[in-house]
Amino acid sequence: MTLDIAHYPILAEANTPEQLRDLPKEKLKQLSKELREYLLSSVSKSSGHFASGLGTVELTIALHYVYNTPFDRLLWDVGHQAYPHKILTGRRERMQTIRKKDGLHPFPWPPESEYDTFAVGHSSTSISAALGMAVAAEKEALGRKVVAVIGDGAMTAGMAFEALNHGGDINKDLVVVLNDNEMSISENVGALNSHLARLLTGNVFNSIRDGGKKLLSNVPPIKEFASRAEEHIKGMVVPGTIFEELGFKYIGPIDGHDVNGVVDTLKNMRGIKGPQILHVVTKKGKGYELAEQDPIKFHAVPKFNPDAQDLPKAPPSDPTFSAVFGDWLCDMASQDPKLMAVTPAMREGSGMVTFSQKFPAQYFDVAIAEQHSVTFAAGLAKEGFNAVVAIYSTFLQRAYDQLIHDVALQNLPVLFAIDRAGIVGADGPTHQGAFDIPFLRCIPNMVIMTPADENECRQMLYTGHKLQKPASVRYPRGSATGVNPETNMTELTIGISRTIRQGQKIAILNFGVLLEQAQQAAEEINATVIDMRFVKPLDTNIIDELAANYELFVTLEDGAIIGGAGSAVAEYLMASQLSCKLLQLGLPDEFIMQGTQQEMYAELRLDSAGILSKIENFCK
Amino acid sequence: MTLDIAHYPILAEANTPEQLRDLPKEKLKQLSKELREYLLSSVSKSSGHFASGLGTVELTIALHYVYNTPFDRLLWDVGHQAYPHKILTGRRERMQTIRKKDGLHPFPWPPESEYDTFAVGHSSTSISAALGMAVAAEKEALGRKVVAVIGDGAMTAGMAFEALNHGGDINKDLVVVLNDNEMSISENVGALNSHLARLLTGNVFNSIRDGGKKLLSNVPPIKEFASRAEEHIKGMVVPGTIFEELGFKYIGPIDGHDVNGVVDTLKNMRGIKGPQILHVVTKKGKGYELAEQDPIKFHAVPKFNPDAQDLPKAPPSDPTFSAVFGDWLCDMASQDPKLMAVTPAMREGSGMVTFSQKFPAQYFDVAIAEQHSVTFAAGLAKEGFNAVVAIYSTFLQRAYDQLIHDVALQNLPVLFAIDRAGIVGADGPTHQGAFDIPFLRCIPNMVIMTPADENECRQMLYTGHKLQKPASVRYPRGSATGVNPETNMTELTIGISRTIRQGQKIAILNFGVLLEQAQQAAEEINATVIDMRFVKPLDTNIIDELAANYELFVTLEDGAIIGGAGSAVAEYLMASQLSCKLLQLGLPDEFIMQGTQQEMYAELRLDSAGILSKIENFCK
Repeated sequence: MTLDIAHYPILAEANTPEQLRDLPKEKLKQLSKELREYLLSSVSKSSGHFASGLGTVELTIALHYVYNTPFDRLLWDVGHQAYPHKILTGRRERMQTIRKKDGLHPFPWPPESEYDTFAVGHSSTSISAALGMAVAAEKEALGRKVVAVIGDGAMTAGMAFEALNHGGDINKDLVVVLNDNEMSISENVGALNSHLARLLTGNVFNSIRDGGKKLLSNVPPIKEFASRAEEHIKGMVVPGTIFEELGFKYIGPIDGHDVNGVVDTLKNMRGIKGPQILHVVTKKGKGYELAEQDPIKFHAVPKFNPDAQDLPKAPPSDPTFSAVFGDWLCDMASQDPKLMAVTPAMREGSGMVTFSQKFPAQYFDVAIAEQHSVTFAAGLAKEGFNAVVAIYSTFLQRAYDQLIHDVALQNLPVLFAIDRAGIVGADGPTHQGAFDIPFLRCIPNMVIMTPADENECRQMLYTGHKLQKPASVRYPRGSATGVNPETNMTELTIGISRTIRQGQKIAILNFGVLLEQAQQAAEEINATVIDMRFVKPLDTNIIDELAANYELFVTLEDGAIIGGAGSAVAEYLMASQLSCKLLQLGLPDEFIMQGTQQEMYAELRLDSAGILSKIENFCK
Repeated sequence: MTLDIAHYPILAEANTPEQLRDLPKEKLKQLSKELREYLLSSVSKSSGHFASGLGTVELTIALHYVYNTPFDRLLWDVGHQAYPHKILTGRRERMQTIRKKDGLHPFPWPPESEYDTFAVGHSSTSISAALGMAVAAEKEALGRKVVAVIGDGAMTAGMAFEALNHGGDINKDLVVVLNDNEMSISENVGALNSHLARLLTGNVFNSIRDGGKKLLSNVPPIKEFASRAEEHIKGMVVPGTIFEELGFKYIGPIDGHDVNGVVDTLKNMRGIKGPQILHVVTKKGKGYELAEQDPIKFHAVPKFNPDAQDLPKAPPSDPTFSAVFGDWLCDMASQDPKLMAVTPAMREGSGMVTFSQKFPAQYFDVAIAEQHSVTFAAGLAKEGFNAVVAIYSTFLQRAYDQLIHDVALQNLPVLFAIDRAGIVGADGPTHQGAFDIPFLRCIPNMVIMTPADENECRQMLYTGHKLQKPASVRYPRGSATGVNPETNMTELTIGISRTIRQGQKIAILNFGVLLEQAQQAAEEINATVIDMRFVKPLDTNIIDELAANYELFVTLEDGAIIGGAGSAVAEYLMASQLSCKLLQLGLPDEFIMQGTQQEMYAELRLDSAGILSKIENFCK
């Protein structure tokens, strides 16, 4: 079901950036209107990221209009906002497949299009990558331009600062577009500043400034003063000093929904050498009233009716693990005034909205700052507080050194509530939580728990919180068995498993939420099923006990096989000289693409049928 | 051999901060002189970090004089500069044991002293940890103060920026001392600015300012203007805007060697609420002329004669792996103009001095910015350049997500030259390169090579560079066998081992620089020795071949056993249902303390005798 392009006559003429650049400038405003409508129709029929794309319609058109893409390099930070870019770069017919198995990738993805210059998904990488490309462009000397588009949220990450610090120092030709969709500016201010920005970037102004610099270059104190004065005159009007201090020429803020204004400004900037920041103010959700009013709700949407007054109510579903975590956090905080919970900008995703409202003094959203989030928690823990860091599996990769060096080395009571562990579904390879078991398991002092269901998750969070040392509980996106957690909280005994099913010959050692699949497979072959619960410390007693009477262990986990929980079992069997065979089931040594969790489990043969057939093959 | 404290009469009275605080202010200048001399005498007899400590003598005295340590929390970033702090906090008699096995820890270490508030070693953690402590102090409401001391180098790391961004936002009482030892200010400027700083922090000025704010608080536009005007008036004099933009009150720069001036300023700051930055200008190596002239050379020193005109010439030694890397880099760059080498501020440590001089256009020091370094390299690689990231094993922990998300996912040709892998010696637990094999092995597309000697290292670097996909070569601090690398460079076949010694029954599979120990042990028991070379991909053919005829495999690696190269062998044996036994030798599941590499190998029983006895025990 594709959209009828006849309803979008200008967009129909702009199926590629080359075609777009052939349009007269007068048509860009109408094109923006059509592109926005196309995006609305498309996403409302397909589901996907929405509000960010609405905010970047004009910016996307202007960038492709002014820059010679794909020869010039355009990098979208994170990529939530890249749907208009996908529509304008020959992919509009496939938009309804986005985020679906074998469909368009959720984010820019180079194998999909030459216009996607760098794979993204995690925040704040664009300036670093663009700077590398700008250095490459200078070496090639073909006149290639490089532009990174980064949101004001992503700009808070240390990585972006590191890149600005380097970029301002080495002075390559690089344009960073700061897409600021938090600042709400009134019409007047916006118009004034757009005017100023165009003045500032006009050729006349720049030749004057450059001339002035040359004239004064042998008179350091005066030049220094002149440059400072200029800076501070601008500083009185625009909030650009932080970027100027870092060596970037700052331009803006300009109205990001005035497509011709953005085009004019970018055209001026094309001729300027060195690192530049263009501060563009946009409105997330722009042009669709409901999304403008609640851009967080409309950040990513299910299929919906654009004419209805709200998104469709989700059918009643089992509570997600994120919700189980959020409830536990509230219950725990009401008992423990020393609980302090930290999130790196994932309040909604991590299920912390209610907690943040009920316990504001114990809640810390540190912005997109994973490194800081963990060491900040370590500081709290060092002073006797019980810190909880709620973080996605793949974002914890950003704070790996801090987890090792600041938490584990000091054996501090920080609990890592690791959401989105294992297969995540539609977000695809950048977000699959495949590696946390291997990368945590090798760290001394770290306890790793893998709940099989929602109740076990709650009890493990409680156990980790009480433990007074580094601990982690990993759980997936969405829900598992639908078991409602018990209200009571009981500490589990560290490193002790529970037996789920008694069989013979084959023992399935389950780590995590694939337990139900394990049970179904076990029924067919009368296998024993153990819910191992702890990856570290491992329940070696149960392994010793079973080894005497079983021919085969099968380990099952929603994570990478290499170095994973199954490898812990392998290491133990080897060290103990137990002669049992072992089959390790989990994620293979490849990046896993997008698809629903069910689709991906089936493809990876981690559903019950797949598990069964793998066991049978192994036994042949 | 301790120092005669009678030569340091004031220092003798200040063995603890409590005693220091009893001294009259007039004696602090003399105390600084004595402390500096004590430091010089002590380090020249013991070896250790030197120039940084010389630069912080006055600052350390002033901080302990003004703040009520250890009740007030004092955090030293990195910790190179904390020797004067150790001397003043009851540890002066033990200074000559620093960095030695069972001696004083190289950096602040809480188990060693209540004055060491947070374990450090890696850069740029102090503001995050201090902010956590500041939040804790507010909750406790006991009037506890928190001060972090961070160098201008460490301030470039994104993590520090993340912490400032958060700290400026939540407005807790926190003092960050920016110890700026790069800026050289003339006497005049320094005096003027010290004066200004004391004025700015004086109670009179602040009560005026706060009063003004209250009066104007209902008149937003004027207040806004007033605040901006004040900011920019100061901005004309001091370079503080970047911190003020982030919400910190900026004070300085002041002369960090004027101990009474620093005391006065800190006393004023104690009374001010909210986050503050004190910009202190110091000279690395201050007071010892040779170190002032070449602070890099005197950053860390061997034992030396303070009266000689230079450090002692190191006895001719085998080339280090760092030097082998540096030579390879030069040779490779002379063949390949597309080679681009990146270091996060470790030019000297990584052996890149000559390269940086000979190939400045291909050399990028990005400052302490590990995250950026890897994604910057990915940007270069995406554009067809051959990027080399030279990085220490434990610092790569800082760029783990970037390695996964920006390099491995896109299968880009970035070569990681991982120095300081395995036991590092005197730097201790924060720097032991124990985890890189486990944390790299689980990442798809990554090739991992473990050279057994210097020549193999060179050939592997060449192999990785030619490979055109993500690759890593891990090598230790110092040297190994002393084999001189061949000038010729030859590509190794990926995933193929070499047989070192033919024996029977027992096969030692060696990964890395413990090969010589393996060979010595093998002689005793007539074991076969294989230099496996590749952790990933593993040479499974040789394992298949040997499994038929051997009873026991022994894996040996200078890295964590958990998830390491031995686990790769375990996984393969299990997956292939080979019934061979396996003993995994490597680093145990604990943080390894300081000591020479030899001492630590002996303690961990990874020398030839230890290896032999472990094999014999296993076979019993």
